[in-house]
Amino acid sequence: MRNFDETTITPAVIDRFAKTPNPRLKEIMTSLVTHLHAFARDTRLSFGEWSLAVDFLTRTGRTCTDARQEFVLLSDTLGLSMLVDAIDNPGAPGVTDSTVLGPFYVTNPPDLPIGADVSEGFSGEPLFVEGAVSAADGRRISGAVVDTWHSDNDGFYDVQLPNLSSAALRGRFHTDANGRFYFWSIMPRYYPIPDDGPVGDMLKATRRHPFRPAHVHFLITAPGHETLVTHVFASDSPYLDSDAVFGVKDTLISEFTHEPAGTAPDGKRMAGPWRKLSFDFGLKEKRTKST
Amino acid sequence: MRNFDETTITPAVIDRFAKTPNPRLKEIMTSLVTHLHAFARDTRLSFGEWSLAVDFLTRTGRTCTDARQEFVLLSDTLGLSMLVDAIDNPGAPGVTDSTVLGPFYVTNPPDLPIGADVSEGFSGEPLFVEGAVSAADGRRISGAVVDTWHSDNDGFYDVQLPNLSSAALRGRFHTDANGRFYFWSIMPRYYPIPDDGPVGDMLKATRRHPFRPAHVHFLITAPGHETLVTHVFASDSPYLDSDAVFGVKDTLISEFTHEPAGTAPDGKRMAGPWRKLSFDFGLKEKRTKST
Repeated sequence: MRNFDETTITPAVIDRFAKTPNPRLKEIMTSLVTHLHAFARDTRLSFGEWSLAVDFLTRTGRTCTDARQEFVLLSDTLGLSMLVDAIDNPGAPGVTDSTVLGPFYVTNPPDLPIGADVSEGFSGEPLFVEGAVSAADGRRISGAVVDTWHSDNDGFYDVQLPNLSSAALRGRFHTDANGRFYFWSIMPRYYPIPDDGPVGDMLKATRRHPFRPAHVHFLITAPGHETLVTHVFASDSPYLDSDAVFGVKDTLISEFTHEPAGTAPDGKRMAGPWRKLSFDFGLKEKRTKST
Repeated sequence: MRNFDETTITPAVIDRFAKTPNPRLKEIMTSLVTHLHAFARDTRLSFGEWSLAVDFLTRTGRTCTDARQEFVLLSDTLGLSMLVDAIDNPGAPGVTDSTVLGPFYVTNPPDLPIGADVSEGFSGEPLFVEGAVSAADGRRISGAVVDTWHSDNDGFYDVQLPNLSSAALRGRFHTDANGRFYFWSIMPRYYPIPDDGPVGDMLKATRRHPFRPAHVHFLITAPGHETLVTHVFASDSPYLDSDAVFGVKDTLISEFTHEPAGTAPDGKRMAGPWRKLSFDFGLKEKRTKST
């Protein structure tokens, strides 16, 4: 096969994938080539524009480090991450909605006892977080693993802070016999996604703001259940209607209530005002291998 | 805007690009989001598959160096490069067909006098290359800049050889008063594109071979004319019908003739057999700014 024109090259490339042993990989490559080529034809993409795209992707790769995933940011800002989430995690009764993982999750966060304070000396409004983890049928799940992480009072995650060597504002909790957990932290703040790289260049060139509304991340796992990746958004935060990564769902917005000085639910004496987030989570039963 | 499902997220993301000042960038981002989302919906892309794609792109970025452009290889092997070439360089009477640039071009190659030998001591069949550069109307172009590069007798380019510190098998020539140039080198060999990175993983997983037929690259520039990026393929090479990057066009295949010992066209005495490539190039008049 030779002498391809802009129409004949697409079936020729697809044909080259004909011997792919894995049928799912063959399906994905066939669809990728179809849509990638349609994009180039529809836009009448020029060699100069193609060169800019190669350079953009190369710089995106160079921006990736252990603490920063620029391709995830690109996917997030193009709405692809939330689209995949919608496809892969359709809502179900009794199951908490999911949203993007985001680029700041760290595997194996500090394993902490219920009630611990993850603020590690960061200043901000004290925040008490409490919740329960249940199956879709309402049955509480004991021993569920609850990873949580969020930004500081200035909108930065620990991994973004150059002079911090240990984890902060993140931790792993295990639900008690009643499926419950609670911990102390500080109020997170809305923040810009990292915009000093290629994704930031794209946002600036298209006059998009980089902000996300204030939220606390949760990644919850339990035997026999699907992993839940979600946030809880603060109902008084700006940017709930224009999240840079399209991640907000009404069901994930909660009031972080203003509480007066006094005794907190865990018996802690609070000399000044504090905030409280109460949010319960429902997990989906694990899909069987055949589906 | 919040609570997107897999259908509503696409217009929501496109709307976010509504204020893009550059109309062409707005058009490209709109089309990119449309096709990227259609790909994810058509394949019912899962979170696990999305994660593999993020990892693939990240490794592709990590594989890029000054001497290797893995994103170009990816584009080449997905047929995108030749599609963009077909869109951006439609054929025209008197104009030589173009093909992919490939990942081994080096800007500003050694500037050499007509007749120089670029083989730099590499062994192989001696090859005499001669050609003329003309405008589409046949008028010869004096002072055209002819960059050429090709693989060695084992199928490697100079930049792939770890112990080589200077350029070889590449050079820059300037056409004479009659629009002609010639030089000596050695016969190039067919070769695999670099397949020890992510693109090689993709080729192996899909049972595609990585080979390209033997060819000599040319990049030709002249004032008032479009840059011509092309190869000339050897008519006796394997893989002409299954080039890993879809770059072969019949018009670019030429016999590299077998010549007996004796006197070469430039008067050089050849003690043994040698090969000859005679190929003339036609350049397209430069597009005006308004088109």
